Amino acid sequence: MERKGDIEERIERGMSEALLSGRRKIINNTSSQLAIVGSNICPIQSLDYEIIENDLLKQDWRSRRKVEIYQYVVLKWTLALLIGLITGIVGFLNNIGVENISGLKVLLTNNLMQQQKYEEAFAMYVGCNMILAVGAAALCAYIAPAAAGSGIPEVKAYLNGIDAHSILAPSTLFVKIFGSILGVGAGFVVGKEGPMVHTGACIANLLGQGGSTKYGLTWKWLRYFKNDRDRRDLITCGAAAGVAAAFRAPVGGVLFALEEATSWWRSALLWRTFFTNAVVAVVLRALIQFCEEGGGQCGLFGKGGLIMFDVNSAKPAYTTPDLLAVILFLGVIGGLMGSLYNYLIDKLLRTYSIINEKGPIFKILLVMIISFLTSCIRFGLPLLSKCVPCPGECPAPPTANFHDCPPNHYNDLSSLFFTTNDDAIRNLFIDGQNTGFQLSTLIIFFVSIYLLGIVTYGVAIPSGLFIPVILAGASYGRLIGTMLAPYTVLDTGLFALLGAASFLGGTMRMTVSLCVILLELTNNLLMLPLVMLVLLISKSVADSFNKGVYDQIMRLKGLPYMEAHAEPYMRNLVAGDVVSGPLFTFCGVEKVGNIVHALKVTSHHGFPVIDEPPLTYAPQLCGLVLRSHLLVLLLKHKTLFTREKVMTTSTVTNKFKANDFAKPGLGRGIRVDDLDISKEEMEMFVDLHPITNTSPYTVVETMSLAKAALLFREVGLRHLLVVPKTPGRPPIVGILTRHDFMPEYILGLFPHLNHQ
Amino acid sequence: MERKGDIEERIERGMSEALLSGRRKIINNTSSQLAIVGSNICPIQSLDYEIIENDLLKQDWRSRRKVEIYQYVVLKWTLALLIGLITGIVGFLNNIGVENISGLKVLLTNNLMQQQKYEEAFAMYVGCNMILAVGAAALCAYIAPAAAGSGIPEVKAYLNGIDAHSILAPSTLFVKIFGSILGVGAGFVVGKEGPMVHTGACIANLLGQGGSTKYGLTWKWLRYFKNDRDRRDLITCGAAAGVAAAFRAPVGGVLFALEEATSWWRSALLWRTFFTNAVVAVVLRALIQFCEEGGGQCGLFGKGGLIMFDVNSAKPAYTTPDLLAVILFLGVIGGLMGSLYNYLIDKLLRTYSIINEKGPIFKILLVMIISFLTSCIRFGLPLLSKCVPCPGECPAPPTANFHDCPPNHYNDLSSLFFTTNDDAIRNLFIDGQNTGFQLSTLIIFFVSIYLLGIVTYGVAIPSGLFIPVILAGASYGRLIGTMLAPYTVLDTGLFALLGAASFLGGTMRMTVSLCVILLELTNNLLMLPLVMLVLLISKSVADSFNKGVYDQIMRLKGLPYMEAHAEPYMRNLVAGDVVSGPLFTFCGVEKVGNIVHALKVTSHHGFPVIDEPPLTYAPQLCGLVLRSHLLVLLLKHKTLFTREKVMTTSTVTNKFKANDFAKPGLGRGIRVDDLDISKEEMEMFVDLHPITNTSPYTVVETMSLAKAALLFREVGLRHLLVVPKTPGRPPIVGILTRHDFMPEYILGLFPHLNHQ
Repeated sequence: MERKGDIEERIERGMSEALLSGRRKIINNTSSQLAIVGSNICPIQSLDYEIIENDLLKQDWRSRRKVEIYQYVVLKWTLALLIGLITGIVGFLNNIGVENISGLKVLLTNNLMQQQKYEEAFAMYVGCNMILAVGAAALCAYIAPAAAGSGIPEVKAYLNGIDAHSILAPSTLFVKIFGSILGVGAGFVVGKEGPMVHTGACIANLLGQGGSTKYGLTWKWLRYFKNDRDRRDLITCGAAAGVAAAFRAPVGGVLFALEEATSWWRSALLWRTFFTNAVVAVVLRALIQFCEEGGGQCGLFGKGGLIMFDVNSAKPAYTTPDLLAVILFLGVIGGLMGSLYNYLIDKLLRTYSIINEKGPIFKILLVMIISFLTSCIRFGLPLLSKCVPCPGECPAPPTANFHDCPPNHYNDLSSLFFTTNDDAIRNLFIDGQNTGFQLSTLIIFFVSIYLLGIVTYGVAIPSGLFIPVILAGASYGRLIGTMLAPYTVLDTGLFALLGAASFLGGTMRMTVSLCVILLELTNNLLMLPLVMLVLLISKSVADSFNKGVYDQIMRLKGLPYMEAHAEPYMRNLVAGDVVSGPLFTFCGVEKVGNIVHALKVTSHHGFPVIDEPPLTYAPQLCGLVLRSHLLVLLLKHKTLFTREKVMTTSTVTNKFKANDFAKPGLGRGIRVDDLDISKEEMEMFVDLHPITNTSPYTVVETMSLAKAALLFREVGLRHLLVVPKTPGRPPIVGILTRHDFMPEYILGLFPHLNHQ
Repeated sequence: MERKGDIEERIERGMSEALLSGRRKIINNTSSQLAIVGSNICPIQSLDYEIIENDLLKQDWRSRRKVEIYQYVVLKWTLALLIGLITGIVGFLNNIGVENISGLKVLLTNNLMQQQKYEEAFAMYVGCNMILAVGAAALCAYIAPAAAGSGIPEVKAYLNGIDAHSILAPSTLFVKIFGSILGVGAGFVVGKEGPMVHTGACIANLLGQGGSTKYGLTWKWLRYFKNDRDRRDLITCGAAAGVAAAFRAPVGGVLFALEEATSWWRSALLWRTFFTNAVVAVVLRALIQFCEEGGGQCGLFGKGGLIMFDVNSAKPAYTTPDLLAVILFLGVIGGLMGSLYNYLIDKLLRTYSIINEKGPIFKILLVMIISFLTSCIRFGLPLLSKCVPCPGECPAPPTANFHDCPPNHYNDLSSLFFTTNDDAIRNLFIDGQNTGFQLSTLIIFFVSIYLLGIVTYGVAIPSGLFIPVILAGASYGRLIGTMLAPYTVLDTGLFALLGAASFLGGTMRMTVSLCVILLELTNNLLMLPLVMLVLLISKSVADSFNKGVYDQIMRLKGLPYMEAHAEPYMRNLVAGDVVSGPLFTFCGVEKVGNIVHALKVTSHHGFPVIDEPPLTYAPQLCGLVLRSHLLVLLLKHKTLFTREKVMTTSTVTNKFKANDFAKPGLGRGIRVDDLDISKEEMEMFVDLHPITNTSPYTVVETMSLAKAALLFREVGLRHLLVVPKTPGRPPIVGILTRHDFMPEYILGLFPHLNHQ
């Protein structure tokens, strides 16, 4: 009964407050309107997936002829094709670049080593790495700070509806591609997969927004894609294509986009993504064949090529004790290690961001320190390892004669350290009969790679997380496999694969997509049940400690991600509780001066429009008008201003072109300061009806916040209007936006919920 | 201007109509409240995924302690485990059953053939098949007519929110399992995959609804799952597990559920489905190992086992002309053949339904005719083929000595016809070097299987569509491969695989899931780009002719499936245009007699509740009350009836248990006739506030129908309330339900839209 009372009291309170413009209106949501992206503070915006049903759109719909719909469909698929094509080519060139740079570096160093000039060799190695690292860092620090890091969190946030400045800008694309080549070439323990996802998304965005006006590359006929919904679809395709190009795993790419990247998904999109990735697969295959057939055309790009760790032909045979060992040692401990990895990355990122904020020079210095550390470890640690006899054939020179190994001997630690990351993974996955690693080798490698991976992420270079985690996981798995070798029939190479799976599950927390990516990488479908089991266990274990690494980074960057599930305490709050004020509303026909004032003093992106007497019988909600539309109206359509407060609608819609109001590309909207309105015009009126969305989504103020959040998230809204429960009050209570659903804001308003 | 006028006129018309209770209220949606399921006419209901926010639920939420939330989570995962376990075991037993029945049948026939008694052998073969077929048909016709056919359309419809009677009942489960074993054992050209999906869904439903009260199997502690949302999740897991068990393709199963089966999807569900399928994979592996190790323990269940066509080790090598041939002959023609397949099945199903409606005897007779036809073709057609020399080793007896082949010769047509469907597929997939089929053999087999597959679907047995389509596609592909052999380097066995892909793409219209299923079946990841390409082309080609086969069957059965996309003409209509009446509304405190009357004269499942003066200041929408909740209130809570029209809320909520109002299992709700209310009670009042959902989703009457449909579909609603745009009118215009969005209904109201 007390509870019923609560609700009633709440309704009454809401009523009186709204009527008296009382306490509620003072609530002002100032929570994170700013986000730190690449340690640059910049304003973020929400994307809007709602269908803006105003007269303009309706006119546009009606006027679209069949041929235009056909055009749209053809264009949609053409863009999907182009995304696949370009991402495939970029992925291939990325590989060629990395392979050739690394190859050249090893060649130079090796020449010096064969002449016994170890100091010179070391200097050459460190120097090469340093130059490449500084190049990558300089690109990141000066041209596009948003290109640092993995890029997957940013893409995930974008697909959730968060538009942070320059996340998908052309400069970011440029730096992401070349920074990634230089960074991976510099021998850092970073991968190119995250950057490739970001690259794919940038390419898709660039194609979708009709090129870049800044660089003079635009296509006017891309107007169909000038809205958030179609751009979202394109960028999803791009993200999927990125994974496909990085791992050569087309199906895995589709699933990655589906499981990790997107927040909304449609069956039609599945198909389009699949098409894009088929294109990527075909392009990659053709280019690789071209390289192979053409002999030396691609320089040192040889067998290494795109990662495809198809090296283990061992048939998985296992018994029940093996299964238990796998579950316990790999699943559980892998999960623990994975969550520890996330925890350490989080701590380190906070430290690094302090350094990075001090300026570009500090960023580059940090990169130089890490580069030097990495070079020392890669060159120096193999000294600790003894030379062992070659298993059958001896590996190629730098590994074989590293630090004076006798003939038919080689240094197994250098076969992991003194090579590219891809080759190291390949060596770890090789089946146990063909090669063996000493226990000490594996321990040294595991510990150093685990730590190097953590300290490297967060410096100002494009850095993927997949490869460091796979490296650490595979060495851990191989270590366990070698230790258990006397007791198990399961191949040590397969242990390495399962170890990689367990670490990936522990950090990234994906399931189906990781499973398929690993299977596509290793081409061993018979491992499926074991990989599934290990992934499930490590994810479950890790989930009980912290969140996935991408979610953590997203939170660290202050991106207001809408979770699919509402927090439990949201069930006890109603929509009216969190609605913020003061609320600015416009009349159906509003004075220009009022509009300009409202645009200047607030940063709201949507304003309710209310029709009032004498235009209507009683105040009624006409709809919602967007800031961007208002700005276009005030800037480009001054002829519509009237001296009297009258509706001009019947003559107006013909004067607009829908394209005027199409969403512009990133950072290219009109700003309030661009307006140039005379004093006389300020006193005039303008009819807002033609640009007002007359059917915005509304919820009643007594709806629980959990239910409102569900609607907000499922339909992909930017503004959700809250209407009063009882009649006779102003027709709108407030507007809910993404920020009103953020836990930080809610818990700030109602601190007692924190202790529940 | 004319357009703006339209809208205004429409608003005004709506206003005056609602005020005058005018023309709109006469609209009555009588479209398909009935659906033909398994040719039995039965009423269908919609499912409700909305959070019903009434006082009861809120009380239940508040009273849930931490331990109960924990209980719920544990139970959720336990059920996922159980679904995987049981579906895996059922899938295995299904296989054992089919293998043993088929094996015994061939054994008996072969014995007679070796004694040269061909007539007796034929009689034995036809007789065995006939007995099995009649058994399957009798089960279907008498016990559970809903079990006939594939079952995938029904599961798909359920997951879209359509609850047709007995679709997931225990009797359906029983018939589906045994009917499928008998049907496949009888040599029909049908698969067990569709039935396994349905079986998995039935198992999930049975577990989720707390067993079956009818058979005395219930668990009371399953109350958490007594709502549509949690059941939907379970059934999604079940459907996925069905595919995993049928094809031994766990990842393919997850993707099938995602791409084809479900209409709503959450990331958390992906993980749970993945877990269920991992369990299926482990169970199947363990059971097969048990059979293999145990020797003859599983009867004739031998190498055939679960289908796993891991028979082709040919490395895919292809040139550009090969690629063009594949695209043209397989992609395009496969797509054409696939859409023709759908067209013919549609026509035939309409014919069959006339026969099936005449009664169970006619159903059985039809099955007998098809069975006889199938037996004749399987036994007789190999006579047309000449004996050919064995390639290396000779196949096992019945094929080798079929119709007097000389030693070291065999009849290649009988190796396709006179065996199980799974073995025939395996033979078609074998690589070209190991075996060759004559061109005539492949032509005969392709034509007969293509037609047999079509005439068999729709008879009263559980019949999957995957296997017939794969068979036809593989023989077609192999045919093309054999014809092109002189000009291509691509293996003929791989041509068969691509042919199967093209037919599947052409009929089912899935992409990613088919791709992964085929790869998991054949264990050949290197085929990926080609399979993707063929699937894409055949789907695109077929899509331009008709819909996917499951969508067609669903439409044929009259299931009101909500498409993800709104039809274009819905953009020109507004919500108010299609809202049907007359509208029954209740007061917050309503006379019992009025409620009983409304329940009796309408079949509505939701009624708006309107608070009127003197309870409130002006008429206001209180919310929506469900028929099922009203019935519980009237049947079980007569103590709450009052003589005066007063609110009793403050004392009431304690008297309810939320479980009283939980959604019961299928066909177990209270009916109006169950009510037993005296004349005196009829005059009393009851307070509806505690069971009223106070925050139903609402849209304004001027919202376009397309936008309303999007909301309805995305959030998974059963009732969508339409509110007036202008104040001063009754607070509700009407309720939109699933049927109001059906094209048949809308085009019936506005016939001119049909010609646009």
